[in-house]
Amino acid sequence: MALITAEQFRESIKDDGREFYCSGELVKDFATHPIAKDLLDYTAMDYEMALDPKYHELLTEALPDGERVHFTFVAPKTKEDLIRRRKVIQTTMHVSGGPGGAKFTGIDGLNGLHLACSRIDRQMGTEYSDRVAKYRRYLMDIDAAIAVAMTDVKGNRTSHPHQQKGHQDYYVRMVSKGNDGIVVRGAKAHISFAPTSHELVVLPCRAMTPGDGDYAIAFATPTNAKGVKMIGRSDPIVVFDDVFVPMDRVFLMGEWQYAHEMPYSFATYHRLSADTYKYAELEIHVGLAALLAEYNGLEKVGHVREKLAWLVMYAEGTEALGKAAVENCEYDESGTPYPNTLYSNVAKFFFASNYYTAEQHLQDIAGGLVSTLPAMADLKNPATREYLLKYLGTGDICDAEDRMKAFRLAQRMCDHVSGNITVHAEGSMAAQKIMLYAVADWERYKAYAKHAAGIHSDHPAVRDIPPHRLMLV
Amino acid sequence: MALITAEQFRESIKDDGREFYCSGELVKDFATHPIAKDLLDYTAMDYEMALDPKYHELLTEALPDGERVHFTFVAPKTKEDLIRRRKVIQTTMHVSGGPGGAKFTGIDGLNGLHLACSRIDRQMGTEYSDRVAKYRRYLMDIDAAIAVAMTDVKGNRTSHPHQQKGHQDYYVRMVSKGNDGIVVRGAKAHISFAPTSHELVVLPCRAMTPGDGDYAIAFATPTNAKGVKMIGRSDPIVVFDDVFVPMDRVFLMGEWQYAHEMPYSFATYHRLSADTYKYAELEIHVGLAALLAEYNGLEKVGHVREKLAWLVMYAEGTEALGKAAVENCEYDESGTPYPNTLYSNVAKFFFASNYYTAEQHLQDIAGGLVSTLPAMADLKNPATREYLLKYLGTGDICDAEDRMKAFRLAQRMCDHVSGNITVHAEGSMAAQKIMLYAVADWERYKAYAKHAAGIHSDHPAVRDIPPHRLMLV
Amino acid sequence: MALITAEQFRESIKDDGREFYCSGELVKDFATHPIAKDLLDYTAMDYEMALDPKYHELLTEALPDGERVHFTFVAPKTKEDLIRRRKVIQTTMHVSGGPGGAKFTGIDGLNGLHLACSRIDRQMGTEYSDRVAKYRRYLMDIDAAIAVAMTDVKGNRTSHPHQQKGHQDYYVRMVSKGNDGIVVRGAKAHISFAPTSHELVVLPCRAMTPGDGDYAIAFATPTNAKGVKMIGRSDPIVVFDDVFVPMDRVFLMGEWQYAHEMPYSFATYHRLSADTYKYAELEIHVGLAALLAEYNGLEKVGHVREKLAWLVMYAEGTEALGKAAVENCEYDESGTPYPNTLYSNVAKFFFASNYYTAEQHLQDIAGGLVSTLPAMADLKNPATREYLLKYLGTGDICDAEDRMKAFRLAQRMCDHVSGNITVHAEGSMAAQKIMLYAVADWERYKAYAKHAAGIHSDHPAVRDIPPHRLMLV
Amino acid sequence: MALITAEQFRESIKDDGREFYCSGELVKDFATHPIAKDLLDYTAMDYEMALDPKYHELLTEALPDGERVHFTFVAPKTKEDLIRRRKVIQTTMHVSGGPGGAKFTGIDGLNGLHLACSRIDRQMGTEYSDRVAKYRRYLMDIDAAIAVAMTDVKGNRTSHPHQQKGHQDYYVRMVSKGNDGIVVRGAKAHISFAPTSHELVVLPCRAMTPGDGDYAIAFATPTNAKGVKMIGRSDPIVVFDDVFVPMDRVFLMGEWQYAHEMPYSFATYHRLSADTYKYAELEIHVGLAALLAEYNGLEKVGHVREKLAWLVMYAEGTEALGKAAVENCEYDESGTPYPNTLYSNVAKFFFASNYYTAEQHLQDIAGGLVSTLPAMADLKNPATREYLLKYLGTGDICDAEDRMKAFRLAQRMCDHVSGNITVHAEGSMAAQKIMLYAVADWERYKAYAKHAAGIHSDHPAVRDIPPHRLMLV
Repeated sequence: MALITAEQFRESIKDDGREFYCSGELVKDFATHPIAKDLLDYTAMDYEMALDPKYHELLTEALPDGERVHFTFVAPKTKEDLIRRRKVIQTTMHVSGGPGGAKFTGIDGLNGLHLACSRIDRQMGTEYSDRVAKYRRYLMDIDAAIAVAMTDVKGNRTSHPHQQKGHQDYYVRMVSKGNDGIVVRGAKAHISFAPTSHELVVLPCRAMTPGDGDYAIAFATPTNAKGVKMIGRSDPIVVFDDVFVPMDRVFLMGEWQYAHEMPYSFATYHRLSADTYKYAELEIHVGLAALLAEYNGLEKVGHVREKLAWLVMYAEGTEALGKAAVENCEYDESGTPYPNTLYSNVAKFFFASNYYTAEQHLQDIAGGLVSTLPAMADLKNPATREYLLKYLGTGDICDAEDRMKAFRLAQRMCDHVSGNITVHAEGSMAAQKIMLYAVADWERYKAYAKHAAGIHSDHPAVRDIPPHRLMLV
Repeated sequence: MALITAEQFRESIKDDGREFYCSGELVKDFATHPIAKDLLDYTAMDYEMALDPKYHELLTEALPDGERVHFTFVAPKTKEDLIRRRKVIQTTMHVSGGPGGAKFTGIDGLNGLHLACSRIDRQMGTEYSDRVAKYRRYLMDIDAAIAVAMTDVKGNRTSHPHQQKGHQDYYVRMVSKGNDGIVVRGAKAHISFAPTSHELVVLPCRAMTPGDGDYAIAFATPTNAKGVKMIGRSDPIVVFDDVFVPMDRVFLMGEWQYAHEMPYSFATYHRLSADTYKYAELEIHVGLAALLAEYNGLEKVGHVREKLAWLVMYAEGTEALGKAAVENCEYDESGTPYPNTLYSNVAKFFFASNYYTAEQHLQDIAGGLVSTLPAMADLKNPATREYLLKYLGTGDICDAEDRMKAFRLAQRMCDHVSGNITVHAEGSMAAQKIMLYAVADWERYKAYAKHAAGIHSDHPAVRDIPPHRLMLV
Repeated sequence: MALITAEQFRESIKDDGREFYCSGELVKDFATHPIAKDLLDYTAMDYEMALDPKYHELLTEALPDGERVHFTFVAPKTKEDLIRRRKVIQTTMHVSGGPGGAKFTGIDGLNGLHLACSRIDRQMGTEYSDRVAKYRRYLMDIDAAIAVAMTDVKGNRTSHPHQQKGHQDYYVRMVSKGNDGIVVRGAKAHISFAPTSHELVVLPCRAMTPGDGDYAIAFATPTNAKGVKMIGRSDPIVVFDDVFVPMDRVFLMGEWQYAHEMPYSFATYHRLSADTYKYAELEIHVGLAALLAEYNGLEKVGHVREKLAWLVMYAEGTEALGKAAVENCEYDESGTPYPNTLYSNVAKFFFASNYYTAEQHLQDIAGGLVSTLPAMADLKNPATREYLLKYLGTGDICDAEDRMKAFRLAQRMCDHVSGNITVHAEGSMAAQKIMLYAVADWERYKAYAKHAAGIHSDHPAVRDIPPHRLMLV
Repeated sequence: MALITAEQFRESIKDDGREFYCSGELVKDFATHPIAKDLLDYTAMDYEMALDPKYHELLTEALPDGERVHFTFVAPKTKEDLIRRRKVIQTTMHVSGGPGGAKFTGIDGLNGLHLACSRIDRQMGTEYSDRVAKYRRYLMDIDAAIAVAMTDVKGNRTSHPHQQKGHQDYYVRMVSKGNDGIVVRGAKAHISFAPTSHELVVLPCRAMTPGDGDYAIAFATPTNAKGVKMIGRSDPIVVFDDVFVPMDRVFLMGEWQYAHEMPYSFATYHRLSADTYKYAELEIHVGLAALLAEYNGLEKVGHVREKLAWLVMYAEGTEALGKAAVENCEYDESGTPYPNTLYSNVAKFFFASNYYTAEQHLQDIAGGLVSTLPAMADLKNPATREYLLKYLGTGDICDAEDRMKAFRLAQRMCDHVSGNITVHAEGSMAAQKIMLYAVADWERYKAYAKHAAGIHSDHPAVRDIPPHRLMLV
């Protein structure tokens, strides 16, 4: 029963005690609540797609015993698995309009756990990996919708977890432990798709220091566990109000020296996910800019074409760099593949740092109607309908309704969320810079510079090369 | 009775037959309609301020006969008048949160008419200026709320008005004329504050060609005239469904050769208004970035400080360039002052082209809560209030409510309107580039280059200067 | 005798009648002329490397008959050949400090000819491909140093070749033709490594129109042919003063409709070469920035680290995009592989458009000594040597001589050539934008936008996908 | 005798014992040395201009007793003096091609001393101001050519002066003091125009700490004093090899708490000088871009026009911001005017941060000839002259000689010095960011943000303003 239907999924989270608070009230019935319903429908799409013959082959995988499970639950073993993961995400984007509600960030969390725990076990002799494997098997069994919770609410961002003023819970921590499990308290922010998930993988979000032992915890919990409260919209804050976690779902417990492995490993996979779904978003972005240029009769204007060409560069550059990150993937000691760290950070930085130029170009091409577009309801009002049809169409090019819809999309694509997500989801640009600085092979770069300058260097890259006779650049 | 109270203003536009359609319905009572009420209250602020002793001196002016009228109705005569106009706008921004609802763009339209008509009259022997003066006197008499309508809906933007396909009304045109007046048809877009205005100044929006005579019209009309329909929100589309305009309110009637003077003159004043109110917006923008840095505990982080410093550069650069445009104002043949064309275009281009970097910095400093902030209603819900207070505050720095309000403001400042307005209001960047190219003194620049290169030039700037002995740059 | 030694190469171009004019005089002896010597030594490196056991395997290839020729002379047949070409270029960069003087751009010209002629032959029934194959065999036989000449001097760039004023030779043209060959006249600019080449492949540089028949010519000529004059330095202007070209070296002769295929095909390969060697340049660039940061004691300063991280992004992004262009290569009808057009243009645009930021960062980190560095000769002068040693070193970090050499390299890397080449070599950014616009799949992009906006589209990419339930972006 | 002729100036520095080492040798005769001669001629221009009737009125000033001295020697007392200083600099730029060799940076050093010493005297009861006044009078008497030396060679830039490793002289320090004067040792870098100056004002370059007392010194010395060695070109390193400075030329002696006042005050004036001369450079830059567009026949190409318009924005924005800095000047307690700190830093940051875009545009418009231009000598060689005349001209537009000269200028304007100076002279961008951050009125900005967000604030800017009714931005 490792693949469930969308209907089974809907049933599975109904009245199960989960607490999701939205716009000032507890959501009682996801199926009818105006906001929760969208999220539920969207998440259900993952289940529909997995059983749709068009996508079944891509999205599911036969285990050695023949059992068919969702592909994303299988731990990646080869470069081809990473390439397929990209195809899964982009196909889901095309079909459901998003990267997937049931098996997106949570899967990256799971794979990040896998990678981090095998490192920690190797160093510490712990056996977290076994617990992760067992948990993975459980997720397959119930065909789980899974989310990941990493970012703590943090309080004062320049202080360590145990140094916070006011209270000690700005980072999720273990408040007690027993033989059978631990009790956790705190809150995590920006937990995408948590409200409709079955399971939540919880990771620390930063490196820890000696005093931070109680904060160095990783675990999994059902979203309807007692004490779990979700507040917000599709990416709520998740509060852990003294939630009990049984021991076999604890994946880090006080080993503060290794806390950073968790966000690092998660980010390793998740950055690729971002590089991947972003391209499908940008296809829409480029397409909308081209469509508005067409609808405005500006397709042949020089500076509009230049902006469109730039947008192509931006979208296809994002795709090429994302591809490069998997084509040149790396492997950890256990042979587990993960995206090339340098390239996946380059990809993320590339699309994040250029996003606002892309938004500017879209707005520039669109024109002022993005601000002043009448409501779609005005198109239905008989007193105004004819006027809008007459004046907001473009003669021989398009009718007013399509044009208004295109501008409505522009409004959504330029709202306060789109830029914010692009900059912050999967780590801010500062995070990418730190990673790029950390993994760059500075000694090799400097050796090449020394050689070009005529300064002696013993670095293997240059030590056998005689001085250049001509420096052309 | 040249200054009316806010109460008199509210009465003056009540049930006067104006047709404002919003969200699918005709607005019947501005005072209670959820959207129109905001606009009404906002516009009323101009009237409150003018009679408030704190602002009375700045905002009003005694005519030679002692009658006190709103300062903005008086035609500018000196550089000091332009400087005062800046002070009026920025004070209004500080007090009402916007540049003014009753006397903002409309005033620039009126002054643009003044400048353009005096040029046209000098060339054509027409007497439009007299009509403008008479109209100005009328506006003073009723202490009018006034808007300007310039941008036509345009259809296919690469075709001239009379070449449009589908229908002939993509640009507002004269469909008939008689001895007493003309009848106009068409629609104008982005008409700020029109719904609560008494009067509308209507200008052509582009240069015309010989076939475009019927489109070369400028006029004024009450917003409650028969056939005027406003559709949208605060900046609606205004439809002219065969509106009659009496002859003494017609300011251009077929002189297509001069049509471009109207948008040009309007823009001359309006670009300064933009340079001016933008600074007051940017004070808030910079302040919000600093506030969020503080609330997040990031005030001392190097890259955050760099971004804050950049934002200061951006805001104060906008102010300095706007100031420079009036400090170095120009005068037309009749002695009427107008902002320095080069500098006011530099100012507009500067703030528009840098805006998206400013938004990126704000988002970067703010963090992901801009996307995932729970609703303010969740702060009122007893089931979630304590959690939000505990987890969204920042220990010793600030409480959760203020922090949530600050993020709420960030959402509003990064919505789809803010960038769009910055880019498009008062002319897109392409328009500024065209103006900069048009007014630059290319011959002087080239002469300096020739001189530096050792190429002969007869230009007066260099002809008496011997060759340079040392080129240091 | 398909591989010659460096010594044989030097002999082969000695006193062979070639006319290379440099700094106002004819170069008589390349081996002793201060500028030509550098170029000769540099070109000779390609020959040294090919016979050096360390590089022999990479740089040479056994033909089916066992004869060993330079790898670059073999027409590419597989993706792996393109990947190897990248390795050849980057290895050459590392060893000789440049992309190669004997077999760099000329090879791209040869491969471009190959691709273009096979297209033309298919359409026109001509047999140019045979001539190209025969010419290729000849190049192998003599182990030629080969250059390509494409960019005409152009005169007024907005006029077609036959419409130029003044004279008719702004584009190289055929002034007469006979049975045995043609006579050509004109001049080509920026002909890299021509002075030390044996052979020159000459291509048209643009699309032609019906009147341009005489300009639609491609051919090859020895550089010491009568009438060939080279004027300049390493990238001279090459004048064709009525040069005779035998018919079997003519590869296009009047087919103006196909003239554009030549620069297009050449650029297809050459853009990849640029994407490839640029990375090796940027390794030096990044390394120098890191070295100067170290030498200045600034390695740990936040904004310096951010700039270094950005430079890593820039360099590695260039490499990843270049790789992506070959990993995703395309094939023409005949099965010949060529770099992915979209990605190779993205790569070129990426590095060209970001270059000046990279230079700014380098200068910013370096400091003012880039401008004011004393001469290396001052370090040798006993009167000043001790002062420079004392004051230009950095205490515990580095000595003055190394630091001065590093600054000297910074001067060379920021000279007037580096930015100019980055922007213009292999086509300006305008050219990349035109290509990106031309090859982008606009209909697919627009289909995705329509689908997201809820506008009907029949495009296969979206026609079977139901409307999105949630638009997340 | 307060104004001397150019001839007297030349005599005054001849054989006076100054030690200027250039390209590996001591310059014995400035009048014939290839590099020193240019510098001498250039510096002499200041003297020629002051006595030229065309500039005499602008450049000189009558003292109360009628004696006529160079205007720049008179301490600024009014806003008009600062405006006139701008006019002096820009006129000098136009006439001599540089900002002046005799009275440029040195004057800013003198005025910076004036400002700083009056502050220090007020705080410490010292009498440095009297010494400065006396020194100023001496400079007038000899009509001095004066330079300023501020930037120490610094060693490891992250260590304080007294913490340097290796030796203690990375910052100029006092090695002994007696009643009559002090002895100084160390070296200063980038000392513009020092080789042809009579006098050198020497300032500390940073804030000092308690251990840095011996480094907290300011003084003046003749450039031909025993122990002064200048090594480099026009902006050499100046070594102080135990130079004796008499007490009346010592302007700071151990007051480390005030050391930062010196560079701060100097920068206050010098940043304005930069804002000022940069415009005159940019006039040439814009003009050259326009000229090359014309010479290439590209004047009407859309993207070229856009780039030219951007360059106008850049140049005129620099001028407008520089003007704003003096139009809105500030006054210290003693009534001495100085440029508006905020605006002069905005101006510097604006032109420095945009410079590389300007260079990119210039290169983009120019084309590849910037790299591959044949030497002017090739134009004189009869064997190549006719070819260059034929092929490097542009038919009906310009002849080859002018075009080559224009490209030669482009080479000089894009060399390694131009960007470096723009970024670093008068303080790097990091320095401007620090200043902008330091002088910004953060509390006012935050108050506006709080008010807009609905957060309580007691700041006077908003405390009396009721909540906004409509937030428009």
